[in-house]
Amino acid sequence: MSLENLRQVKILAFDVFGTVVDWHGSIVGEVRQMQLDVDAADFVRAWRAGYKPAMARVMSGELGWTRIDDLHRIILDDVLAGFNIELDEPARVQLNLAWHRLQPWPDVVSGLHRLNTRFTTCSLSNGNLSLLADMAKNAGLPWDLILSAEVFKAYKPHPDTYLGVANVFDVRPEQVMLVAAHHDDLAAARECGLRTAYIERPAEFGSDQLKDVSPPAGSGNDLHMSDFHALASALEVPE
Amino acid sequence: MSLENLRQVKILAFDVFGTVVDWHGSIVGEVRQMQLDVDAADFVRAWRAGYKPAMARVMSGELGWTRIDDLHRIILDDVLAGFNIELDEPARVQLNLAWHRLQPWPDVVSGLHRLNTRFTTCSLSNGNLSLLADMAKNAGLPWDLILSAEVFKAYKPHPDTYLGVANVFDVRPEQVMLVAAHHDDLAAARECGLRTAYIERPAEFGSDQLKDVSPPAGSGNDLHMSDFHALASALEVPE
Repeated sequence: MSLENLRQVKILAFDVFGTVVDWHGSIVGEVRQMQLDVDAADFVRAWRAGYKPAMARVMSGELGWTRIDDLHRIILDDVLAGFNIELDEPARVQLNLAWHRLQPWPDVVSGLHRLNTRFTTCSLSNGNLSLLADMAKNAGLPWDLILSAEVFKAYKPHPDTYLGVANVFDVRPEQVMLVAAHHDDLAAARECGLRTAYIERPAEFGSDQLKDVSPPAGSGNDLHMSDFHALASALEVPE
Repeated sequence: MSLENLRQVKILAFDVFGTVVDWHGSIVGEVRQMQLDVDAADFVRAWRAGYKPAMARVMSGELGWTRIDDLHRIILDDVLAGFNIELDEPARVQLNLAWHRLQPWPDVVSGLHRLNTRFTTCSLSNGNLSLLADMAKNAGLPWDLILSAEVFKAYKPHPDTYLGVANVFDVRPEQVMLVAAHHDDLAAARECGLRTAYIERPAEFGSDQLKDVSPPAGSGNDLHMSDFHALASALEVPE
């Protein structure tokens, strides 16, 4: 895209699960520590696979507004049953909070600090506010503002989330750039007029199931970057 | 109050204007730099005096949901007219954003860092999210989470704001303590079951109009403190 258009961007909004933090590696580590009799990588992928269907139940109206913490717990109980794992209530509560303790990819903390010198940065995650606040505190993520589906009472990819960011900061949609490792999220943001940057996270689903992160033909993203420092350089932020 | 009750507190929610930042001193400084032909202290007090009536118009339904930025601008235009001051549109926009640049009281930044070691801290302000994010970035306020009336679509002292904090963090109301320099705010929080700490800010309205910060008989606040470090000590947070 033209540098002129990029220079209009004021707000960088970041997808979180997979883009900022390594949910798979982090939760696999916790499951292994618990010594559950299960393939940790498969277990965690099954837990995550329940995420979009659970949000769809909320957005269809079948469930009232429900925090991701509560959706994660509903899915966890199903997945534990599916894998025939016995786990008492305190252990379930503790495991469910693993999403509050996800670890960032190695470029993230220094990359965000660098981006913060020129832009206002915020999360735009389907994760709930307390999950994102705990994660930021634990991992040292220097958000200028934590925004969540919980603020807009709609889950991505609903337009209210992307346009909600522009509204909060009182800017035009094209002054907001969504940064994400997922093409569906970016496509929905583009439909709302946001700028978009794809970030390559090949190991999002584990190093045994690498995902294709090559630039698709005509994806329409303004940028396609290897990590947050490459993004910062493309946006002309000094190192 | 009993130390046992205080030890149940997990979340500290802070009023911002007057409690965290010195709105009067900060805006007086900006008005003086603009060399307007007006008594800056009176001008700023008049601007601030329009704040509660403007929020009341929103909460009564006369105005739809309106950000504080927009209410500040409506009041500013009125006050400029009242003081017979000519100011062009760019200067009004710039002056209105002075609320995004308010400076903290001297104990605040180090006090919040100290409190963050034991508690989750958040703002609970009628200021809008972008105002609070700009202020935190500019002043280095280390909030774990920025919460605003804008999240709850209700202005303090509406119960949805105080109970909203407990809901966001999935805790009981008595596990949240509101920290504020205003008795009406604290009384409303107490009605909702929150713990409360009063902070003395005698110069909130300027050093030429000191306010009485002595503990009123039977105010019902759990704590009455001189500043954030005294609060941290009362809450047993090491220096």
